[in-house]
Amino acid sequence: MVQWTDLGDVSSAEVDRMRAVYEPLAGAVRELVDATIRTEVDAETVAAVKAEIDAATARLRAVQCDGPFGVRFTAGGDRMAWGNPVIGIRNPVAPPLTIHQDSDGGVFTDFHLGAAYEGPPGHVHGGVSALVLDHVLGEVAANPESPRFTGTITLRYLRPTRLGRLHAEARITRTDGFKAYATGHLADDEGITVEAEGVFIQPKWARG
Amino acid sequence: MVQWTDLGDVSSAEVDRMRAVYEPLAGAVRELVDATIRTEVDAETVAAVKAEIDAATARLRAVQCDGPFGVRFTAGGDRMAWGNPVIGIRNPVAPPLTIHQDSDGGVFTDFHLGAAYEGPPGHVHGGVSALVLDHVLGEVAANPESPRFTGTITLRYLRPTRLGRLHAEARITRTDGFKAYATGHLADDEGITVEAEGVFIQPKWARG
Repeated sequence: MVQWTDLGDVSSAEVDRMRAVYEPLAGAVRELVDATIRTEVDAETVAAVKAEIDAATARLRAVQCDGPFGVRFTAGGDRMAWGNPVIGIRNPVAPPLTIHQDSDGGVFTDFHLGAAYEGPPGHVHGGVSALVLDHVLGEVAANPESPRFTGTITLRYLRPTRLGRLHAEARITRTDGFKAYATGHLADDEGITVEAEGVFIQPKWARG
Repeated sequence: MVQWTDLGDVSSAEVDRMRAVYEPLAGAVRELVDATIRTEVDAETVAAVKAEIDAATARLRAVQCDGPFGVRFTAGGDRMAWGNPVIGIRNPVAPPLTIHQDSDGGVFTDFHLGAAYEGPPGHVHGGVSALVLDHVLGEVAANPESPRFTGTITLRYLRPTRLGRLHAEARITRTDGFKAYATGHLADDEGITVEAEGVFIQPKWARG
């Protein structure tokens, strides 16, 4: 059973305040992740920096939630998937993607992937392309009133995707009861690199 | 064109030394990523920690490689995919997975996924399952002498995968010229959660 966390009557202003506190921290840790992969400083400097990071982690852990962040929502309709590894503004693993609705019901996102997402040299790991497309197709197939989880997804890799500025988009092709069929693609600056299609299913516990 | 980096005549002892310098740093940053998602310390503490992290990043960036890490190999056969987002020991985004060969040509891995990989509350993001399975199937389908990249992969989600201790495995079902067909699955402590099958193709530039 998957359970969302109801924060109840928390105002949008309070959500904005929490965002302003924690989002810059995650941004700083994203930069640190990139530097950790690429650094060539000497062993003494690495050891000193590691000690500073251990101390920073301890300060943050002095007060922390028990277990993962979860998905929290407020009575006013704010939905905080802040720990999500694709869109989570508090998760340094997430690029993070910002997903937009287009005028005819589809979704799209423009984003950047750097060193942390590299598979073949200079190129996006094929599994990262799958991670992004699973999320983007899932986002168009579901909504807060009707959660749907991936049933099946197929990815076709046309050519390697270069690291750098990327675009992904998805749309629903049809719905059939508890199922939504979605299609989408990932593109770099030379065009489409990966195509995806998937079936997203509303779990039994979420059916009204 | 995807290009590996030939480090030439670097000894295994030197590779081990570099590993001993940089691997603990990535481990510390992984802990920081988890704490960044889960912390509930106050705004002043977050701001102070952020300033420390910015300073740590600057120290690491004082000497760093130009662009992503790439995949480096030595004349002696050491292969360093240390920036990889699934297995990279220098990449805090990677859990990282250690992949083992089994006795009949398959591969398997036992690993742990925590807060940084959460999609539905308490469960693994479906796209993270895809990331892991793409890598594990790719690992069994390719080898240093014969690189193969994902052509097509299909994932079937049987039920949500709980965060925690997980297992993944894959094997080749058949090969056909430049193509290898692989199958595999992800499992949590209650059994198989996601099944995968894929076709992995040797790129034209790598054909002898």
